[in-house]
Amino acid sequence: MGGVVALEEERGPSRGLQPLLDLVADDMGAVNGLILDKAVSDVELIPKLAHHLIDSGGKRLRPMLTIAGAKACGYRGSGHIKLAAAVEFMHTATLLHDDVVDDSDLRRGQQSARLIWGNQASVLVGDFLLGQAFRMMVQVGCLPALEILSNAAATIAEGEVMQLAAAKDTSTGEGDYLAIIDAKTAALFAAAAEVGAAIAERPQEERMALASYGRNLGMAFQLVDDALDYAGDSRQLGKSIGDDFREGKITLPVIVCLRHGGDEERSFWRRTLSEGRIEAADLERAIRLMHTHRAIETTLERARQFGAGARDALAGVPAGPATRALDDVVEFCIARAN
Amino acid sequence: MGGVVALEEERGPSRGLQPLLDLVADDMGAVNGLILDKAVSDVELIPKLAHHLIDSGGKRLRPMLTIAGAKACGYRGSGHIKLAAAVEFMHTATLLHDDVVDDSDLRRGQQSARLIWGNQASVLVGDFLLGQAFRMMVQVGCLPALEILSNAAATIAEGEVMQLAAAKDTSTGEGDYLAIIDAKTAALFAAAAEVGAAIAERPQEERMALASYGRNLGMAFQLVDDALDYAGDSRQLGKSIGDDFREGKITLPVIVCLRHGGDEERSFWRRTLSEGRIEAADLERAIRLMHTHRAIETTLERARQFGAGARDALAGVPAGPATRALDDVVEFCIARAN
Repeated sequence: MGGVVALEEERGPSRGLQPLLDLVADDMGAVNGLILDKAVSDVELIPKLAHHLIDSGGKRLRPMLTIAGAKACGYRGSGHIKLAAAVEFMHTATLLHDDVVDDSDLRRGQQSARLIWGNQASVLVGDFLLGQAFRMMVQVGCLPALEILSNAAATIAEGEVMQLAAAKDTSTGEGDYLAIIDAKTAALFAAAAEVGAAIAERPQEERMALASYGRNLGMAFQLVDDALDYAGDSRQLGKSIGDDFREGKITLPVIVCLRHGGDEERSFWRRTLSEGRIEAADLERAIRLMHTHRAIETTLERARQFGAGARDALAGVPAGPATRALDDVVEFCIARAN
Repeated sequence: MGGVVALEEERGPSRGLQPLLDLVADDMGAVNGLILDKAVSDVELIPKLAHHLIDSGGKRLRPMLTIAGAKACGYRGSGHIKLAAAVEFMHTATLLHDDVVDDSDLRRGQQSARLIWGNQASVLVGDFLLGQAFRMMVQVGCLPALEILSNAAATIAEGEVMQLAAAKDTSTGEGDYLAIIDAKTAALFAAAAEVGAAIAERPQEERMALASYGRNLGMAFQLVDDALDYAGDSRQLGKSIGDDFREGKITLPVIVCLRHGGDEERSFWRRTLSEGRIEAADLERAIRLMHTHRAIETTLERARQFGAGARDALAGVPAGPATRALDDVVEFCIARAN
């Protein structure tokens, strides 16, 4: 925590998401128009299912990073609009496939698409959105941006497979966990920010700085998400408390408990997470154990460390309102936990 | 049949797949090496599952079209190798997702990946292979090829969703069916052939000629496949006879029967395909009805028409051994039915 306080003293207090929202408002209008346009298909089921997710009120944080990244690098063209829409489609496709993989019934506080239209349609419409994402990127014609985003696509899938392989495995360590969230979440945050610099044809160092910003921000974001799954408010979160618990996901709060708990506690985690034999009071007990071992605090502390890394990385990006807005986003992502 | 015989008289008898195999042997060695290389990942489950499909002895017809297309257009570089591997990965990813969507237990005569490793892993490894496909294409750096293949990716997914929506719906007409196979199968054949011309930087007419060749060949290929599902040898086919029947797919052989059969027959098709209430002797009855209505012959006749279209399209491609080998492939694809 100390590090972040020190940074705030240097840089002034965070103003949350508002500066970013103001900065990107016009461009995000165009991005949102494009998103609606590219979810169109003569095949009726596609727009129906795509809109279910598109209209469900995600924050569109990732495409905003692309827009702000491009602005921070002084980009003056219009290619960042298509890249931002492509980034959001990649994310939406991942959500559709995730829900199938996790058997999720709820997404952003609504019934998940797979619950309404079935796993089959969710898999295929996810594929369609991924295809549309690539079409948009290709239309922009910026090979470095294509390279960044196609690398991210492969890495995200790799991360999802890693997560699947680690699920229910209570021997998963903090290093494994960090590698998983790096691939499944932080890689797209990193790519989203970096393509802003790539399309602006900025030097390699600036691209790397924005990539590092995005990567650290994505790590912080996912750590907070995983903490909230045991400590959040389900209405605000748009998913149920305890989803990760029920799905046997081994996230950092659990790993902290496993590290500090005795044999009896470890057999509790094995019964619930590995064997999936969950009884009525088990989630409450899990949350109690997290209090005992300060697992949520430890997770959020780790999030703050990555947050500080994200802010540090911005030193490599030209100063200005866009860069300041990106700085403010960091605190917003972490403040979700309060 | 008459049309094809006439064509053979003009062009000499078909020599099957062998000329193509000989023509592309060296390059396909490199493609196969690349396929193995790009299925590698530190995430153990990925190469395991990918190899299950890669090693299962598919013909690799689509990447061979890319190699032969490039050769027909006089291409002298090495970018066609990566494009061909990318085409095969796109196909493999589609197969993995298809098996999940169709609940298939068998693929190329082996247990399907989803039966061994589960639907979740099949969805995610499919996503990984698609990501790797895009990475390879981007590395080649040929924007027209990227445009062709990213368009195909979106179209294939659209076709799969169309097929899903039409499944079990006995009001599906021949036009609907042709639109489905055009998107789900012929689009990738077309793209595979066209990128050969694109990377050779050949004029638009030559690209269109190879695209038309591939599209017609893909239509013929799928029509034969759909005929074989009721008339083939399951060992040769690598899938069980009657898969489409059990999955309620409305393919052309069924559409022909629905068109010519009376009320009693239509209620048979509705019970089996729409309602999925299939009894022991029903597949036999379906096959008998197809004999009665010459449904397999009609389907194969349609395949031959598309085959003739494929051969005609080659008139727009420079003559030479590669173009002759592509011509021979047409007859091979149709002869599978004998």
